[in-house]
Amino acid sequence: MPVVGSEVDPAWLPDEALHALGSRRVRVEGEGDLVDTVRGEVVHACGLYGGSVVEDDGPYDVLLRRQPQSGEAHGPEGFTLERAGGRVTVTAAAPAGLLHGYFHVVRLGRAAFTDAPPETHRPALALRMLNHWDNVAVHPVMGQVERGYAGGSLFWQDGRARGDLARVRAYARLLASCGVNALSVNNVNVHETEAHLLTDRVTEVAAIADALRPYGIRTHLAVSFAAPVVVGGLDTADPLDDGVRAWWREAAAHVYAHIPDFGGFLVKADSEGQPGPFAYGRTHADGANLLADALAPHGGTVHWRAFVYDHRQDWRDRTTDRARAAHDHFAPLDGRFRDNAVLQVKHGPIDFQVREPVSPVIGALPRTRVAVELQVTQEYTGQQRHVCALAPMWADVLRFRPEGEHGPTVGELTASGGLVAVSNVGDDPFWTGHPLAQFNLYAFGRLAWQPDADPDRLLTEWTESTFTPWATADPDRLRAGLRAVLRDSWTTYEKYTAPLGVGFMVQPGHHYGPSVDGYEYSPWGTYHFADRDGIGVDRSAATGTGYAAQYAKPWSQTYESPDTCPDELLLFFHHVPYDHVLHSGTTVIQHIYDTHFEGVEEAEAAQEVWDGLADLMPPARHARVAERYAEQVRSAREWRDQINSYFLRASGVPDAHGRRVF
Amino acid sequence: MPVVGSEVDPAWLPDEALHALGSRRVRVEGEGDLVDTVRGEVVHACGLYGGSVVEDDGPYDVLLRRQPQSGEAHGPEGFTLERAGGRVTVTAAAPAGLLHGYFHVVRLGRAAFTDAPPETHRPALALRMLNHWDNVAVHPVMGQVERGYAGGSLFWQDGRARGDLARVRAYARLLASCGVNALSVNNVNVHETEAHLLTDRVTEVAAIADALRPYGIRTHLAVSFAAPVVVGGLDTADPLDDGVRAWWREAAAHVYAHIPDFGGFLVKADSEGQPGPFAYGRTHADGANLLADALAPHGGTVHWRAFVYDHRQDWRDRTTDRARAAHDHFAPLDGRFRDNAVLQVKHGPIDFQVREPVSPVIGALPRTRVAVELQVTQEYTGQQRHVCALAPMWADVLRFRPEGEHGPTVGELTASGGLVAVSNVGDDPFWTGHPLAQFNLYAFGRLAWQPDADPDRLLTEWTESTFTPWATADPDRLRAGLRAVLRDSWTTYEKYTAPLGVGFMVQPGHHYGPSVDGYEYSPWGTYHFADRDGIGVDRSAATGTGYAAQYAKPWSQTYESPDTCPDELLLFFHHVPYDHVLHSGTTVIQHIYDTHFEGVEEAEAAQEVWDGLADLMPPARHARVAERYAEQVRSAREWRDQINSYFLRASGVPDAHGRRVF
Repeated sequence: MPVVGSEVDPAWLPDEALHALGSRRVRVEGEGDLVDTVRGEVVHACGLYGGSVVEDDGPYDVLLRRQPQSGEAHGPEGFTLERAGGRVTVTAAAPAGLLHGYFHVVRLGRAAFTDAPPETHRPALALRMLNHWDNVAVHPVMGQVERGYAGGSLFWQDGRARGDLARVRAYARLLASCGVNALSVNNVNVHETEAHLLTDRVTEVAAIADALRPYGIRTHLAVSFAAPVVVGGLDTADPLDDGVRAWWREAAAHVYAHIPDFGGFLVKADSEGQPGPFAYGRTHADGANLLADALAPHGGTVHWRAFVYDHRQDWRDRTTDRARAAHDHFAPLDGRFRDNAVLQVKHGPIDFQVREPVSPVIGALPRTRVAVELQVTQEYTGQQRHVCALAPMWADVLRFRPEGEHGPTVGELTASGGLVAVSNVGDDPFWTGHPLAQFNLYAFGRLAWQPDADPDRLLTEWTESTFTPWATADPDRLRAGLRAVLRDSWTTYEKYTAPLGVGFMVQPGHHYGPSVDGYEYSPWGTYHFADRDGIGVDRSAATGTGYAAQYAKPWSQTYESPDTCPDELLLFFHHVPYDHVLHSGTTVIQHIYDTHFEGVEEAEAAQEVWDGLADLMPPARHARVAERYAEQVRSAREWRDQINSYFLRASGVPDAHGRRVF
Repeated sequence: MPVVGSEVDPAWLPDEALHALGSRRVRVEGEGDLVDTVRGEVVHACGLYGGSVVEDDGPYDVLLRRQPQSGEAHGPEGFTLERAGGRVTVTAAAPAGLLHGYFHVVRLGRAAFTDAPPETHRPALALRMLNHWDNVAVHPVMGQVERGYAGGSLFWQDGRARGDLARVRAYARLLASCGVNALSVNNVNVHETEAHLLTDRVTEVAAIADALRPYGIRTHLAVSFAAPVVVGGLDTADPLDDGVRAWWREAAAHVYAHIPDFGGFLVKADSEGQPGPFAYGRTHADGANLLADALAPHGGTVHWRAFVYDHRQDWRDRTTDRARAAHDHFAPLDGRFRDNAVLQVKHGPIDFQVREPVSPVIGALPRTRVAVELQVTQEYTGQQRHVCALAPMWADVLRFRPEGEHGPTVGELTASGGLVAVSNVGDDPFWTGHPLAQFNLYAFGRLAWQPDADPDRLLTEWTESTFTPWATADPDRLRAGLRAVLRDSWTTYEKYTAPLGVGFMVQPGHHYGPSVDGYEYSPWGTYHFADRDGIGVDRSAATGTGYAAQYAKPWSQTYESPDTCPDELLLFFHHVPYDHVLHSGTTVIQHIYDTHFEGVEEAEAAQEVWDGLADLMPPARHARVAERYAEQVRSAREWRDQINSYFLRASGVPDAHGRRVF
């Protein structure tokens, strides 16, 4: 049990969450490092609540046992849970399975001790990875953690790996308890300093890996495609060059010498200024396979990001569509990637906006392992100053069926690749800056384990674990309050920000707060084309950029016409006049006004609900959220007024209800 | 003669500029440090070109003599020039006068040796000061030099005063030669580090003052109004507090102990976050007088900036008008400032836009010494990547008559206060980044000496001094080329940027490049209110903010109505429909299109002219300007296309000439 001090918020593992198990007689059977971790957890829990660790043949209430012979049923991480006669038995083939089983029992709390039929749990996705965009050296613009809203890095400080890794161990425990099993420790934008983590600074990565390992988290490293040049002193990074191939083989062997269970490399290549194979006239399959071959002898995997587009686009050029880029680049490469190469695709075609269609890349490469990348850090969804519970959005993505109702879901399509997310955690006492943003981290892990999980059930799980309502004066008020402020917070955020899937409209650079034209004349390929008559991007095949045709049927047809395109994505796919009538029956312009007034009202109502929960939780946690709500409501009003004013000025159409637009 | 190495551009004092004088017999008569400076200059010039320094009663061609008895005619800085029989005589009462006379002869070059009637020259303004917005410690956002576009600071490096001040001495020489006689060495935004220059770090300022003194430049210091608290350890900075008053008296005495000819303090108070007297319920007269009283025993002056406005304005509030702020704050205080307090007023009411009306503060405080502040550093006028010769704009300001044709000019109204400018100089080899931006620095000095000087004549002076066309293969081509690229460059820049005096439309923060709505929904008070019907700010008394009524007649009447308001200021004073017809006969929208196409064409033409001058100047200077032109033309096209697109989208009115608008 890592000890991190009382000033650090326990997130979803407060001592109270261990009460049910810790007050019982618990027996742990089996060998292995992770079994020892389970044993340590049990000792800690029983020490807190008067239970006992049963070492002899005496009676027990809970049996946690590793049985290697049950491997086929459980795989490397699964387990069976049996509950009968008030006794709980967890059986796992592998140590990691036992750890997951242990945390499952913790999560169930008192309910674990009610009888139920046996259940076998296995993760639907083998890889459940967090990417940390943490810089070793503070970046002059992006800081210690790129797009980080929770303080400094858990891993890096003052230009080096932290000496005290207790927080990292505690973080690993939190992650393991929700299902995460892999983590990359540095920013995908690999700057000069960080490039050396691969070579002469690998011992720092190894120290972090040592802290993560006891909880079954494998360490991955983001590397620069130009590493052979930048740190290797070669004059090329050409993936087909023998010297380059040898260099990478040696680099991989060097890493594995220090980290025997190293997970692999993560690469952002030919993207937003990062080097890549295009410089040598090679394909991204050539690039990915270079690293895959270097990792293969050691059992490692390369995660190759599909986030490749022209970030120096001319806004005057309406024929280029950034949304098309990943599919255009990668779909033709299907079948050309190694088995240990995974193509890591953002869930939407642009960049983690509050509303995007599912990326057409997912499902378009049947012979390629594809991972879906989510963004837990709230770059475009309120930066952990706004409450925005993203589980419903992610659940929608994971349940989406790219080939229609008879085809597989995104969750199923990514079984071989995994689910990946950019972490929202830093060295903030509440881990995620905004305490309620912990739910996003938790939900990511749980959805990676079970992509078809009900986000509403996950909210309950997290609420019960984190706030332990049963231990408070008014469990029902607390449960209802948390549900009220969290459940629909994503749609609330959507309402007061960019409308109908149009995206962006954020302030350039830091991406916080509204600026309708902030990216309109920029090289970033993120436009809305609003004028006095209408708004939106025509991505139809018939008259637009053709992006809609990148989808399989029926989606290519659904999205092709404004008549069938869902309202919430209308402006992503079509340029329509302000008086276009939505399926909802209202016009686009009136929808803009209505949602922006509603969104603010919802944020204000949530703030009020929160104010009424002060007596039911630690004062510091309540105060931190209250402080964030003040900013959220201020910011939401700013969004409302700027968006409404902009479109009133552009359209000349007054609000039908006569509300105040400036 | 300071030696700074051949890599530093000589600006308008190349050796060739000394040829006429340096090839003759020169006699220097008189005593005083500045006379010694003149003597050193003459020794250097004669050493270069074979002239001689006449020490005995022998014949001479040039006599430079100090005659203290001629004080009444010359004052502390004037001189008389006599030219007869090929012999030149400069007579000055004071050493500074002799120095200015010497540089006048240098400026005349060979023409000095043609006969002409005697002339007496005296500066129209006693104070001709540059403000350096240089930070001692590099600011995380603003860098070493706030709004600096010419590299680092001449004065500060690595958090301290530079050890080698040769560049400072060379800078002092350049400044003296064009008439500057005062300089503040640190940013008006006084941060923590810089606050200590007043106290425990005054020796660093003294070292700089020692380097400036031989060329007659007095040193001033920007101070924090909160210095008694920040560095003094007092618990208040209340200007009426006896302890505070005593603290400032001691602080001033301390400075004068190290810098006997110290010029005084410069203060930005209650402005953009800087502390000021408002915090104590005191007026700005109270604040300025506090410092004036501390300086008075030593002959120092406080320059108190009038740049006080609400920088946290709500964009929704149309009743507040930033343009009104300085007049609202300061006009009621007339007569309440000490004799050694100078109110330093920006030339326009907002912030150094390419086109603003003259500030109504100038002329509104007849019993107060008022200095006008210009911005030589091109924050809003191309940041020394664009050619934008500002002398014509400044000349227009200085010739403006706030009370109409029978009243005094701005130049006359500021005789008691002086002309001040924010410097555009850094440690760049060309001093000002863009070599042609040297002209702005030169012209500022010359206009401060003679506010009614013809900017066209100043351009000739600078061209002749800097490029010494007579020494090149094709003097006429060089002269014509320089004139072509510089003379109308201000109006060229105006054409392709924000139209008709509306201002801003720049990218937030760094202020480079277009962003029509960049400040439209911001707290900075800089709006254009463009919508689908029209654009501009109604500042009339009848229907607007009332700003126009801050002017005396006839201007209050002229600006009040769109019928009489000059075209170039129309959108500053009035909100008009896009089809409003200008005095020029064209509509507002067509004017926007026309000027933006013209402005780019003019920039392209200038670039071509410049390309044709390569053989007539040092390659490095030509290359630097050519490199800047590439960026200017790129940026100008971006301005054109963004502005035109924005207004086409807003107005729906196509260009009458069918040119391409995106």
